[in-house]
Amino acid sequence: MNTTPTAPGRSADVADLADLAAVLVGSLSTDPDILATYATDESVHPGKDALALVRAAGVDDVVATMRFAHTHGIPVVPQGARSGLSGGACAEPGCILLSVAAMTTVLEVDEANMTVTVEPGVINKDLKDLLRPRGLAYPPDPGSMAISSVGGNIATNAGGMCCVKYGVTREYVRELTVVLADGTVTRLGHRTVKGVAGLDLVSLFTGSEGTLGVIVEATLKVVPLGPDPLTALATFPTVADAVRTVSSYMATGASPSMLEMMDGTTVGLLSEIGDFGLDDTVGTVGAVLIMQSDSPTAAADTEEFAHVAEAHGALDVAFADNPADSELLVAARRSVQVANERYCSSHGVGQMIDDVCVQRSRLADFCAGVEAIREDTGTMVTLVAHAGDGNVHPSVFYDLSDEASVAAGMTAFDRIMDLGLSLGGTITGEHGVGALKAPWLPRELDDGNRHLHRVIKHAVDPTAILNPGKMLEAL
Amino acid sequence: MNTTPTAPGRSADVADLADLAAVLVGSLSTDPDILATYATDESVHPGKDALALVRAAGVDDVVATMRFAHTHGIPVVPQGARSGLSGGACAEPGCILLSVAAMTTVLEVDEANMTVTVEPGVINKDLKDLLRPRGLAYPPDPGSMAISSVGGNIATNAGGMCCVKYGVTREYVRELTVVLADGTVTRLGHRTVKGVAGLDLVSLFTGSEGTLGVIVEATLKVVPLGPDPLTALATFPTVADAVRTVSSYMATGASPSMLEMMDGTTVGLLSEIGDFGLDDTVGTVGAVLIMQSDSPTAAADTEEFAHVAEAHGALDVAFADNPADSELLVAARRSVQVANERYCSSHGVGQMIDDVCVQRSRLADFCAGVEAIREDTGTMVTLVAHAGDGNVHPSVFYDLSDEASVAAGMTAFDRIMDLGLSLGGTITGEHGVGALKAPWLPRELDDGNRHLHRVIKHAVDPTAILNPGKMLEAL
Repeated sequence: MNTTPTAPGRSADVADLADLAAVLVGSLSTDPDILATYATDESVHPGKDALALVRAAGVDDVVATMRFAHTHGIPVVPQGARSGLSGGACAEPGCILLSVAAMTTVLEVDEANMTVTVEPGVINKDLKDLLRPRGLAYPPDPGSMAISSVGGNIATNAGGMCCVKYGVTREYVRELTVVLADGTVTRLGHRTVKGVAGLDLVSLFTGSEGTLGVIVEATLKVVPLGPDPLTALATFPTVADAVRTVSSYMATGASPSMLEMMDGTTVGLLSEIGDFGLDDTVGTVGAVLIMQSDSPTAAADTEEFAHVAEAHGALDVAFADNPADSELLVAARRSVQVANERYCSSHGVGQMIDDVCVQRSRLADFCAGVEAIREDTGTMVTLVAHAGDGNVHPSVFYDLSDEASVAAGMTAFDRIMDLGLSLGGTITGEHGVGALKAPWLPRELDDGNRHLHRVIKHAVDPTAILNPGKMLEAL
Repeated sequence: MNTTPTAPGRSADVADLADLAAVLVGSLSTDPDILATYATDESVHPGKDALALVRAAGVDDVVATMRFAHTHGIPVVPQGARSGLSGGACAEPGCILLSVAAMTTVLEVDEANMTVTVEPGVINKDLKDLLRPRGLAYPPDPGSMAISSVGGNIATNAGGMCCVKYGVTREYVRELTVVLADGTVTRLGHRTVKGVAGLDLVSLFTGSEGTLGVIVEATLKVVPLGPDPLTALATFPTVADAVRTVSSYMATGASPSMLEMMDGTTVGLLSEIGDFGLDDTVGTVGAVLIMQSDSPTAAADTEEFAHVAEAHGALDVAFADNPADSELLVAARRSVQVANERYCSSHGVGQMIDDVCVQRSRLADFCAGVEAIREDTGTMVTLVAHAGDGNVHPSVFYDLSDEASVAAGMTAFDRIMDLGLSLGGTITGEHGVGALKAPWLPRELDDGNRHLHRVIKHAVDPTAILNPGKMLEAL
């Protein structure tokens, strides 16, 4: 696919940019320091050499920017909170970074119809906090929910810990307003619970990572706020025991509201940053499972889980008997990235986070395969997983000062994706393709599927100015 | 959009068709009687002048047919069980009718991963029956489930009575194998619970009504079979009381597994075809609501429903105290079409079934508006609704022997869609656009949205041979 900006784009000059800046309510910056800051997201992918940063104050700014970019053939990289882990929001040379992070208005909370309408920059957790006093919840809960924006969550079809019961972001998106490559504003989908008038373009744009348009407004389904969940913590001698428990437990038809796995190394790293009530397991367990149920049968659910865990060799199953203890265990799981980053900075090492999803029945094979890759490459690899969904996040660590270690880390990272594909899985369960995995996407999709991606992208963004170098780049 | 087949298509002759027939495992027919039978679905839309009918025995037959059609520029109308209500499977002049109804193999039931893989011709109810002894369920339950095929359900993103809790067909489709316009076979989506590698083409093809490709295999999510639901029946003096009950009850955060409304006239028509336990309400009630809960708190749920119904003027609330009585009430709801058709045939009248979906908060306004249209046009209009979803099926009746009556019926049908749009609703909640509502689709979608439909259709089916005259025809 040709995503090179057209020649005129490369020649947009300061005067042209001043024209754009003059019509914006928000701001335009070409300050190199600011551009450098906005060039990257939370991935290891380097972004560089942006032409300008537009901080949109509203839809009109997005329209003006897209019209300008369309006229001049300049690539545009839409950005939300830049909390992504796949480089989907990283700068491409000569691009305009189009940030909607300042568009943070909650436009409507419709309690009668259980929907909320928001601008894209609203932070996921802020939305949750706004809804809670009204007895409502917006379930999608990516690990980044305290810092990531709803628009970015939609653009990546973000997952999280509650997906095992409540599904992914797509299942909550009713209606989107998007700005197309030429600045056209269009509304997709419907506010009604059901609707089949036309193609499902809301789903097409959800997870399209800024390659088809810029999301400027979303109407989302919300649900009644559930009761506080009950939580169980099971410890196992090995990861294999833990993941076999997951497969068996889910095959009973269980519907936990959370089923997370962390390996022993991860638990050790967590203990370095705080006391999450897991300290007595450090060094003694190979893996832990954290299970929650928020259903009316929660007590029976946790008992059933304990029963299955014990049948699969659990060392111990403990129950959090109050919301505070329960919250502490979840906080542990949510703090894995902080713990990993702390380890990196204190040890001078780098980290790449993988995101393979396999069928639950293949979880044991996948984790065994990662173990083999770890040994083979001599690389430190830790495992956490949204285990109930078969979605595993192996973190690959490497010594930044040692070229061979970096190379071994890259090899391990790639082999983990290869392993996932060989088991019928996907290279990305929830983080997205971005720049980081764009070279891998052709390996997952067959010829016809790649063809469809190419022709649809070309139809929607004929001059290929929307987020070049990302998801669809190598198809 | 130009959907006229190219000139060569019109000249495909008997010798050409013989070439196609020679490579099929299934059959090809040009018998006028057979073509006439296969020219229509369950809508009032007339289909005619098909060139041939291919009954595909498998994927290879679909591929051969699409290659042939592509080479000769012949339009192709994919067909499943032809149970649709919008004319989506009706013949267009000069087309090949491509039936996958004979592709009925259930390829895999994967209990560990809670999925089932099927050919498109499998009947919805047959799949349910196959899964039940294994403790599994495939929730989507369109009214036609006893006769409609899973492939057709996917092609129309079919709904049903359980959507209010379990969602529509799209939420169950993990992976699709489709044959594109030129005969290319491609697999879309993923078998894993989560997956964001590339655009969500599974959702794009789900509900695309045969305009983008032919579905030849689907992997569907299944769920644990739930307990028998508890059922409540509430009767009301007026439709307005019933729909206000629905809005209020759903706004409590309730999650019924069914919440259906039928007006008094419909109850009367039902009593003509059998005893569903509703006979003592005939002539005395304006509307009934049937509510079910299959949750662990079902007893409390039905009590809560009764409380809300009584607060909104219910005449009576009865509880089905055993599964047989419960099933009888559901059978009544499922028999509405049979009752309406019996009325039509015994009175020499015709019927058009509308399918508007509005936000639940607008249900009362919508039903009042239909009442006004009924009076205004002097037309008999009955109301049934998946009320919990705001999805209403007004049936418009007209005297086939009276031109003025037919015209008044058409006017009422159109004004009902207009009313739905004016209330922020959609012209079709679950039946699809097909040929019947294709002229209406441009009124629901804005300019940018129509543009996206046109360019995506052209990109995926550049010679416009896939199901011309249907959904996208007027965009």
